Amino acid sequence: MMEILEEVSLFIHQNELLNPGEKVLVGVSGGADSLCLLDCLHRLGYEVFVGHLDHQLREGSSEEAEAVRRMAADLGLHAVIGREDVQAVADQGHSLEEAGRLVRYRFLIDTANEFGIKKIATGHTSDDQVETVLMHFLRGSGPSGLAGIRPMTNLTDWVGFGDGEQIKLIRPLLSLDRAQTTAYCEARGLQPAQDPSNLDETYFRNRIRHELIPILEGYNPAIRQVIRRTAEIMAGEAELIQELLAAEWDDYITEEADHSILFSRDVFLERPLGLQRAFLRAAIQHCLPDIRDLGFGVIERSIHFLSAEENDGRIPLVGGLVLHRYHKLAGIALEGEGFHFSIYPQLTGEVFVPLDTSFQVPLDGGWALEGERVSASEGLRAQLREGLEAKEAVFDIKRMGGGLKLRTILPGDRIRLLGMKGRCKVSELYVNEKVPRGAREHWPLLVDGEDIIWVVGIRSAHSHRVTPETEEVLRLSLKSPGGDGHDPKI
Amino acid sequence: MMEILEEVSLFIHQNELLNPGEKVLVGVSGGADSLCLLDCLHRLGYEVFVGHLDHQLREGSSEEAEAVRRMAADLGLHAVIGREDVQAVADQGHSLEEAGRLVRYRFLIDTANEFGIKKIATGHTSDDQVETVLMHFLRGSGPSGLAGIRPMTNLTDWVGFGDGEQIKLIRPLLSLDRAQTTAYCEARGLQPAQDPSNLDETYFRNRIRHELIPILEGYNPAIRQVIRRTAEIMAGEAELIQELLAAEWDDYITEEADHSILFSRDVFLERPLGLQRAFLRAAIQHCLPDIRDLGFGVIERSIHFLSAEENDGRIPLVGGLVLHRYHKLAGIALEGEGFHFSIYPQLTGEVFVPLDTSFQVPLDGGWALEGERVSASEGLRAQLREGLEAKEAVFDIKRMGGGLKLRTILPGDRIRLLGMKGRCKVSELYVNEKVPRGAREHWPLLVDGEDIIWVVGIRSAHSHRVTPETEEVLRLSLKSPGGDGHDPKI
Repeated sequence: MMEILEEVSLFIHQNELLNPGEKVLVGVSGGADSLCLLDCLHRLGYEVFVGHLDHQLREGSSEEAEAVRRMAADLGLHAVIGREDVQAVADQGHSLEEAGRLVRYRFLIDTANEFGIKKIATGHTSDDQVETVLMHFLRGSGPSGLAGIRPMTNLTDWVGFGDGEQIKLIRPLLSLDRAQTTAYCEARGLQPAQDPSNLDETYFRNRIRHELIPILEGYNPAIRQVIRRTAEIMAGEAELIQELLAAEWDDYITEEADHSILFSRDVFLERPLGLQRAFLRAAIQHCLPDIRDLGFGVIERSIHFLSAEENDGRIPLVGGLVLHRYHKLAGIALEGEGFHFSIYPQLTGEVFVPLDTSFQVPLDGGWALEGERVSASEGLRAQLREGLEAKEAVFDIKRMGGGLKLRTILPGDRIRLLGMKGRCKVSELYVNEKVPRGAREHWPLLVDGEDIIWVVGIRSAHSHRVTPETEEVLRLSLKSPGGDGHDPKI
Repeated sequence: MMEILEEVSLFIHQNELLNPGEKVLVGVSGGADSLCLLDCLHRLGYEVFVGHLDHQLREGSSEEAEAVRRMAADLGLHAVIGREDVQAVADQGHSLEEAGRLVRYRFLIDTANEFGIKKIATGHTSDDQVETVLMHFLRGSGPSGLAGIRPMTNLTDWVGFGDGEQIKLIRPLLSLDRAQTTAYCEARGLQPAQDPSNLDETYFRNRIRHELIPILEGYNPAIRQVIRRTAEIMAGEAELIQELLAAEWDDYITEEADHSILFSRDVFLERPLGLQRAFLRAAIQHCLPDIRDLGFGVIERSIHFLSAEENDGRIPLVGGLVLHRYHKLAGIALEGEGFHFSIYPQLTGEVFVPLDTSFQVPLDGGWALEGERVSASEGLRAQLREGLEAKEAVFDIKRMGGGLKLRTILPGDRIRLLGMKGRCKVSELYVNEKVPRGAREHWPLLVDGEDIIWVVGIRSAHSHRVTPETEEVLRLSLKSPGGDGHDPKI
């Protein structure tokens, strides 16, 4: 049995699963796979802890737990035996399989945390791999599903507790098959439980194992090897795309919060389809980290929706998420929640604006309004430029009288734009200027008494314009958080 | 049947398969799929030509050909009927399926060329797609295989005639299933041949169609849809990776010829696994454009071989190709063929080197040797630098006497290196200096009479060194094709 031990050792080394002598918690069901794993890791000199959860689903489950405890004791290892009423958890609205997985991994994570262990090992073999890939193929869970079980994953991400723990889930037996783990147990005198409570072995998986794989072997006798290779290659591609996405992530994102994400629709639409899919998948997972088996449909619908020529709009996604489409932006957030739009000037409440020689008024998120008095001729020149550079505006100080302040939109707000005849609704101006719907409510407006004299960064009013008779001018500039050179990505 | 016509029209539009009114050659077997395709394209206003190849494999094949001709005549379309003894081609060492495909596509390409047609359409449906993806899954042809049949491919690349034709193969019916094409033919009064000679319908494909798919439907009733979606997503990923590879291609390649490619092993090894696989696949296909179904094994073996710590080495790949491993380079070429190593200074034959005040001697591929006379003090300074900058060397002119020339290595060549005591073999110097094996034969050597005084760009000889007694110095510089600043990537 030296060969199997060496193969496990090589696999651990090649995939950098464990450092020499590292602490590792082994999830032991009592079956051949987990006993083989336990024995190998112990013999390879790792500091092994044994974790066993009694799912209380079958008669005799506590005897099995006792057997695991005895075996650990024989090897001189510390064992933690948990007990959970999995059926009761399932009754709260999970399938038995889901409930078992949730409870089991929570138990393993808690145990790992208790002993300061960073790696949890499970006994998945290449047979599990083949079955998993086939299950994913049949269910259509996409390329990352075809990658199957990875040698190492971030467990906390996977279960979605999201409490920042960096515990890894490792599968050191992924290069062995079940026949090898059974042979290993025999050779080492280990006595696996006949029917360990492995809840992953559902009806569907059993049908695949005992019925479908033999059928497929009639088409290609090497089907197991082919599927394992396919999984390896898919894993490589998935990693590549993740890497690519990680490198580009900041190009997309304009705002990231716990359950929401705001991104550049323009950047998104420039990308090839494969990357659009990967991005949306990652964005949805960002908003709902514990989502599993994200279907094809939601991704394709999202791409279709974002590619349409219309602007403002929204569609429901999954798990209460909503996809919002703006002009150059798009966002995903929980129903009823919005974005801060920190890439736009936004204002919470009202702010008094002084008429000092030179001043600065802070807006939300690092934006600011800078003011200074300039000469009439400079004011005139600036006014002529305004069409091009709406981040700046100039006003005739003599025409001011009501007291300057910044506020946000009120029902019925209107403005006569510089150079125009009639007055228009500010709400319509927002539509015309393609201000995203979600950014309108907190867009800053400069008012003099009752008159709106500047829709900040967009258009100024005719009333306070600079004329040849103007003597003194107030020049206001909108400053973005990134500094002067940084245009708002409106 | 308006719906089906509209669906075909939409699919053509979405995938940009044809321009309005464009000429298209339809490959018509006489079955429901191809009759539906022919009729749809004709009604949609394209300039349809009919191509039918009588494979002469069954009794009655010429009656089927005649039926196709009549149908084309009824629609007022031009039909070309070919006749080939496919069995005879198969007897030359192809499977019947392969022979049929080769002969059929050659016939279609010839016909397209004759009439100046750039698009050939075939009647592949979504059922063909599902079967193809399953066949690839079972055979393990990797992610691009799981992408299945694409709406449009470059036919000449695919068949590998490689004569620069830009004929595209399009599949306008890929969104329909067989039941739809049959229903369409019924509704339009078209009479498909009962058993058209479609050689793609091999025994393996038939088993998948009639046996495996119904079994898989027992696992997931929507399996056809799932597989179609999987194929779409795989196609997107494959395209993404191809795009990525195309953008990086020049970073890898140092030399590209018809059946060989030399690339930077360093760049290759820095890349993630998924891209390494894609690169090798593309590199092999560059060398053998008509290779099909490149297996997993050869790619994985190649990666393993290139990742090893050793340098010079070679392993056979497929189709007579050999993978060569050098120090910082690697290459693929047909057995017995080599590389020009144009990123290294190489010399064909011998060249006389003048002793003029200032001169240039051309080497192969844009490399050159520049010479000029400099003062003794400048020569001394240059000699002190030589360790750092082997692209330059200086020699005491008074020590020269035998006549300068450039030649390549001869058996037994030795040199006493500057500052060293004994003489070493030039062949060993090449090994120590990590000159790729393939670049040694044509590496230029500067000789004075019988003495090697410079292994160009690498090390110079002790005999002609500059000393405090030196009066006049010859300084030689090696210039790469890219100009002075461009270091050879040795």
